[in-house]
Amino acid sequence: MLVSPSTHHFADPLPLRSGGSIRAYDLCYETYGTLNADRSNAVLVAHALNASHHLAGHYAGQDKSEGWWDNMIGPGKPVDTNRFFVIGVNNLGSCFGSTGPMHVNPDTGRIYGADFPVVTVEDWVDAQARLLDVLGIETLAAVMGGSLGGMQALSWSLQYPQRVRHAVVIASAPNLTAENIAFNEVARRAIVTDPDFNNGHFYAQDGRAETKPKRGLRIARMIGHITYLSNDVMNAKFGRALRQALMTGVDEAGDTGLPGAGGYRYSTQEVEFQIESYLRYQGDKFAEYFDANTYLLITRALDYFDPARAYDGDLSQALARASARFLLVSFTTDWRFSPARSRELVKALLDNRRDVSYAEIDAPHGHDAFLLDDPRYTGLVRSYFERIAVTETQGVDHE
Amino acid sequence: MLVSPSTHHFADPLPLRSGGSIRAYDLCYETYGTLNADRSNAVLVAHALNASHHLAGHYAGQDKSEGWWDNMIGPGKPVDTNRFFVIGVNNLGSCFGSTGPMHVNPDTGRIYGADFPVVTVEDWVDAQARLLDVLGIETLAAVMGGSLGGMQALSWSLQYPQRVRHAVVIASAPNLTAENIAFNEVARRAIVTDPDFNNGHFYAQDGRAETKPKRGLRIARMIGHITYLSNDVMNAKFGRALRQALMTGVDEAGDTGLPGAGGYRYSTQEVEFQIESYLRYQGDKFAEYFDANTYLLITRALDYFDPARAYDGDLSQALARASARFLLVSFTTDWRFSPARSRELVKALLDNRRDVSYAEIDAPHGHDAFLLDDPRYTGLVRSYFERIAVTETQGVDHE
Repeated sequence: MLVSPSTHHFADPLPLRSGGSIRAYDLCYETYGTLNADRSNAVLVAHALNASHHLAGHYAGQDKSEGWWDNMIGPGKPVDTNRFFVIGVNNLGSCFGSTGPMHVNPDTGRIYGADFPVVTVEDWVDAQARLLDVLGIETLAAVMGGSLGGMQALSWSLQYPQRVRHAVVIASAPNLTAENIAFNEVARRAIVTDPDFNNGHFYAQDGRAETKPKRGLRIARMIGHITYLSNDVMNAKFGRALRQALMTGVDEAGDTGLPGAGGYRYSTQEVEFQIESYLRYQGDKFAEYFDANTYLLITRALDYFDPARAYDGDLSQALARASARFLLVSFTTDWRFSPARSRELVKALLDNRRDVSYAEIDAPHGHDAFLLDDPRYTGLVRSYFERIAVTETQGVDHE
Repeated sequence: MLVSPSTHHFADPLPLRSGGSIRAYDLCYETYGTLNADRSNAVLVAHALNASHHLAGHYAGQDKSEGWWDNMIGPGKPVDTNRFFVIGVNNLGSCFGSTGPMHVNPDTGRIYGADFPVVTVEDWVDAQARLLDVLGIETLAAVMGGSLGGMQALSWSLQYPQRVRHAVVIASAPNLTAENIAFNEVARRAIVTDPDFNNGHFYAQDGRAETKPKRGLRIARMIGHITYLSNDVMNAKFGRALRQALMTGVDEAGDTGLPGAGGYRYSTQEVEFQIESYLRYQGDKFAEYFDANTYLLITRALDYFDPARAYDGDLSQALARASARFLLVSFTTDWRFSPARSRELVKALLDNRRDVSYAEIDAPHGHDAFLLDDPRYTGLVRSYFERIAVTETQGVDHE
């Protein structure tokens, strides 16, 4: 499937939860499939930290340009674009096309940098709703997302209950725990204290060259990766295997013949274990293409999301506004957004007598499982969307 | 109890597992209680990452100079210094008195810095054994430690089986998992990539001022703290509470009246949540007093420890050499060194028909629990040592 992104310029200011606003902005988006005559088959898919509007398909002439959820979305895929009109939107503050910290603030004529306004999940949902207005879509057949994307799907059901028939919330949570916030904070401090961060104004401007805070971004990404994987899958994939052993076999330098010494190089800074090599590689790659201010903004949006906050922490009260039907999915080894967090959502929805389907998939891959192929998981999403397609987008409206 | 440290200079080189050696070195140590006539009541206590020889008591004229395990060790305490002669030794490479990276290499006349040799748990145990020789102690009533200290206690039982009657191994593991190594590696990268690290030669020398890599040390300590605490205790202590709320009560600036907005300041860099304030405080404090090269060395000693490595991963074979009796303790919410890791040790010891007592304490505090007061835990250690005192150090030798 060959696809191409579009951009829409919004000239009206977007008011933000912080009290500020963005005066004018672009949203980058992609669509897949065809909007049907009664405009009832639209599915909005929200992205998480390190993703974009490019959900599925390839760009012409670009190898390895596969969308980040290509295993889930496309012709004949679980979210079948032969039946659904699927929309991916890059969120405000991101670094993949929509207006973000690396762009010029129309109010000042200068690059936003760290002055880009703090955006929340609710703000993103408002911006996405405006894009739907532009596309002439009043009601979504479904809104869907994993992780931070799942928070956006949940927030859609609360902010625009009449515009969402189904909310598919995968590997997500009603808010972050103290531990989740703690990991975000360490990552942010690594970025902010990198001398090249330059208080968030590190872009090329006024004849100054760009000084990308790659050290901080590397650390942030390494921390992230640890929390995306389960202990089990880390032990299975890497265990205590040495990098040397992988590369040169058993006849290794540095074996002193002493017990426990086989293959160790005895260095505090060189790569010794495969897990170190993996993390450094992931960190280096990420630091090349991701934006530091975007990292701060997106992790903060995660921290702030907490629909129960306005209800003294009562999640059941907070979710009373939702009228959508829900599919929730969690993964047993996900310790970032554990099944217990999804069960909190299920309970609060059931307290409100909402229509909820919930699956806890016994998968070893940790939080990353939501992006991976697992026939139980993809089969579940497929049958859920098939039911929507058959009962709701072919002239029969159950709302 | 007023105490004071001692230092012994060792003029003979210490051969290391890396194949290198340390030509001459000092060990800093403290002792508590009195060695009995038949020298049968000595207990060696090994320290973990951020600790020292100063186990218990206070230094004269210094408030807040309490030893790090003062709740466990002292007159009338679980490890009762009225009965036992307890020894704390600062490990080589540490920054609390024994020879380390901040000292002058006698071979070159220059500060070691990053050239301090990589030391292992086994090397530390060898050095501790030499100190016992100096003190005239052939056999330990017990060797004891938590976390990395527990690894040293275990290693004592394997390296010097005839010199150890009891090994008390608390909140420890037979080796690090991939995830454990991963956290160590991120912390090390944060330190090494701090521009002030200066390739490990950041001490004042040749008229150059010290440039301590505090940014990296802060990140390292923040990561450490997350792994020391359990998710449960983090939620109980900090949850999603805002720093502002704690300081000024409910009438907070920044409340826009929008749902979910109460009290948020909407900043990516300022402290917003209490957990952030806590972590930054811990990081700042640590960066002031801890040495960056020591951090690298000690985390590497953790990574390398793996007695089963020389036996193709067969822990039962590796522990066959041990002849001590064992007490192992783990804590249910410790996800750094989980109970499952202690159970691996218990199984391997039982495979060898060793005398093992094992307790899994249902405590909410995560890895930190081994340093905290819990009557089940301290009571257990107390009764274990009482049994040793009554049956083994009063003229009756059961060996």
